[in-house]
Amino acid sequence: MASRRSIESPVEMEGVARAENVDPGALASLVKSGRVVIPFNTRHKGVRPKAIGEGMTVKVNANIGTSRDVIDVDLELEKVGTAIAFGADAVMDLSTGGDIGEIRRRIIAACDLPIGTVPVYEAICQSTRKGGPLEMTEDDLFRVIEEHARDGVDFMTLHCGVTSESVRVLRKANRLTGVVSRGGAMLSAWMHENELENPLFENYDHLLDLARDYGFAISLGDGLRPGSIADATDAPQIKELMIMGQLVERARYGGVQAMVEGPGHVPLDQIETNVRLEKAVCKGAPFYVLGPLVCDVAAGYDHIAGAIGGALAAYHGADFLCYVTPSEHLSLPTVDDVKEGVVASRIAAHAADIARGRSRDWDDDMSAARKAFDWEKMFQLCVDPAKAREYRRRKGKEGSETCSMCGELCAMKIVDGLLRD
Amino acid sequence: MASRRSIESPVEMEGVARAENVDPGALASLVKSGRVVIPFNTRHKGVRPKAIGEGMTVKVNANIGTSRDVIDVDLELEKVGTAIAFGADAVMDLSTGGDIGEIRRRIIAACDLPIGTVPVYEAICQSTRKGGPLEMTEDDLFRVIEEHARDGVDFMTLHCGVTSESVRVLRKANRLTGVVSRGGAMLSAWMHENELENPLFENYDHLLDLARDYGFAISLGDGLRPGSIADATDAPQIKELMIMGQLVERARYGGVQAMVEGPGHVPLDQIETNVRLEKAVCKGAPFYVLGPLVCDVAAGYDHIAGAIGGALAAYHGADFLCYVTPSEHLSLPTVDDVKEGVVASRIAAHAADIARGRSRDWDDDMSAARKAFDWEKMFQLCVDPAKAREYRRRKGKEGSETCSMCGELCAMKIVDGLLRD
Repeated sequence: MASRRSIESPVEMEGVARAENVDPGALASLVKSGRVVIPFNTRHKGVRPKAIGEGMTVKVNANIGTSRDVIDVDLELEKVGTAIAFGADAVMDLSTGGDIGEIRRRIIAACDLPIGTVPVYEAICQSTRKGGPLEMTEDDLFRVIEEHARDGVDFMTLHCGVTSESVRVLRKANRLTGVVSRGGAMLSAWMHENELENPLFENYDHLLDLARDYGFAISLGDGLRPGSIADATDAPQIKELMIMGQLVERARYGGVQAMVEGPGHVPLDQIETNVRLEKAVCKGAPFYVLGPLVCDVAAGYDHIAGAIGGALAAYHGADFLCYVTPSEHLSLPTVDDVKEGVVASRIAAHAADIARGRSRDWDDDMSAARKAFDWEKMFQLCVDPAKAREYRRRKGKEGSETCSMCGELCAMKIVDGLLRD
Repeated sequence: MASRRSIESPVEMEGVARAENVDPGALASLVKSGRVVIPFNTRHKGVRPKAIGEGMTVKVNANIGTSRDVIDVDLELEKVGTAIAFGADAVMDLSTGGDIGEIRRRIIAACDLPIGTVPVYEAICQSTRKGGPLEMTEDDLFRVIEEHARDGVDFMTLHCGVTSESVRVLRKANRLTGVVSRGGAMLSAWMHENELENPLFENYDHLLDLARDYGFAISLGDGLRPGSIADATDAPQIKELMIMGQLVERARYGGVQAMVEGPGHVPLDQIETNVRLEKAVCKGAPFYVLGPLVCDVAAGYDHIAGAIGGALAAYHGADFLCYVTPSEHLSLPTVDDVKEGVVASRIAAHAADIARGRSRDWDDDMSAARKAFDWEKMFQLCVDPAKAREYRRRKGKEGSETCSMCGELCAMKIVDGLLRD
């Protein structure tokens, strides 16, 4: 085994530390210890690095990407612009349709946020075109990973914890919804068909070499995450998490930044446990959660179910929220869905930041503007100024003296004199 | 002082107990002890009683009502229909424009859910027409309360805890946003101008007589609730809560059903404390929270900020969620805002029910339908079937084999064979 390497980041710490309002030396230590990850591939020109993890503000990721049915790069670029405009901190390109490489390169060029991908999607799409999805070879997969790295991808979801061992636990688990992670499903089907171990696990040291050489961060994908409340926090999920805990340690030993992905569908009473378990088992590695959704019946409004779960997860220590859009479980997101998803996740992340003692200035400024009836300032401070303006505009009597927040009966005006006496 | 009376409810317990899946005798005891409230005015024909409190499912209220600017009873009735259709458990008529009495009677006749009102709004509107808002007399206010009771109102928000004592604490508090409850503002201004105690506090025994005689429940309004994260859980709020705790005991002694209203704007880290404090100080009285909103900057999306706070509050023991719509802080809600508000609160309430160990069958049915690709059943089980159908329909290729949940790469299909081997 090679000797221990230090996690080195090419990032200029001063700027990131300033954005987070923390000490640059303390930030560098957290990165070295693996408790904070800054995905940053030097080949991604102009990327604004973001610190994810302990003591940092909660970050939000927006997923975009083509499918076989809808291949329109301009549409995806519009989604990227929307995600940036509404305050996402990262974008993942999950494209599975068209010239995936070309699409990715255009997205990377257009996006100054860290970009993540799931290379196994492209590898499977390529082998599907050549013959069948399960004909993918280990070399195919690693060639795609290296191409993503060369293109400037800042972090990659790699389902290294889907192993013969965790799949054995899965097969005994009698789940309601089986496997709902596409990467997890592809890899377990591939392993089963070819009677081989997961190449991402088998060749993890080679993966670490690539990550270190190209400078991308590894996001350990939770391929066996539960897809329903009934399956939450079950044996396959925990088994995979334990494997990921070992892989985090190997990444740190190898000088590679790693974070851990989490569920999924989790009832409110299990969210704190899930976060504390990940932090314990994975030795404080940044926790990147999808939602989590706090019920299964909110299709059409899963961004709300995800905001509830995300806020609570982040309050208890989750570091990075993958947004959920209203189209989850129904169709691929439109530009408007991207907006709805980013805004909902941003509200969740910000609520957690307030509760974790980060700056409340934004809220205090808003409340002071509200008290002063300074509508222009309120609009500017809203998560979505255009929507706020539109809601205020529609009140019928343009320019009416009443603010129509509560009709004519304004508590703040009524009591204003009283409190000033 | 009169001797202790028992809380008697004219409700037929069997049906309510069946709906809650609890024992009728246990429910009757909870009602007698004051830990569960069933607002039910026999003059409200056809009302479906709902049990609110300990051990019951979490309930959702929708506010509607005219304002001076928009007086359209049919529009308000449409909002009532929307609230019922999307699963609200109660409706509050907060009308302040037009013939308020006539509007209320039409709403009561059209609505089979328990109806709540805030009588001080109408009393103040009447005195405004006669001369000035602060010329309202005690008799005016009690006359309005009695009229609401005769009309069949099931529960009334009465800000009895806004007293000289709590207003004194308020004046010393140096709040960012002062008073944001309209009832609280009106009463404190009235008390200040007329140098009198709050008539609802001063004549609380008379109020209890009316409530007992007509059979309406008292909802103790939190007139001094904070209107910003900066003011959350401050001295005036707690002072008022302590007074409400005494008033709950007097209501129980007088044989009257009483619940307690709560904030408002509360950061995530103070929500559990707020719920436990109310349950302790008010001896387990049902807690009826407005939101709470977990940040101040979500105008246009306050239904999401409120769903986050409401889910967490209900998980920790809040019993009744007053919805918040996207129009909060901006304008009065449209029919569509009512829908958005009810759905968001329903998701929050249901997430809390799951976490509190109530039935998860709804979610399990949905997940089984998802696993079986039974789209029709999924639509039927969604919180908003029409929206779910619309999202699925728009996927471009009508009738395509791919379900477009994830494009063509379906985890559940890929792995299905593997798990069945």
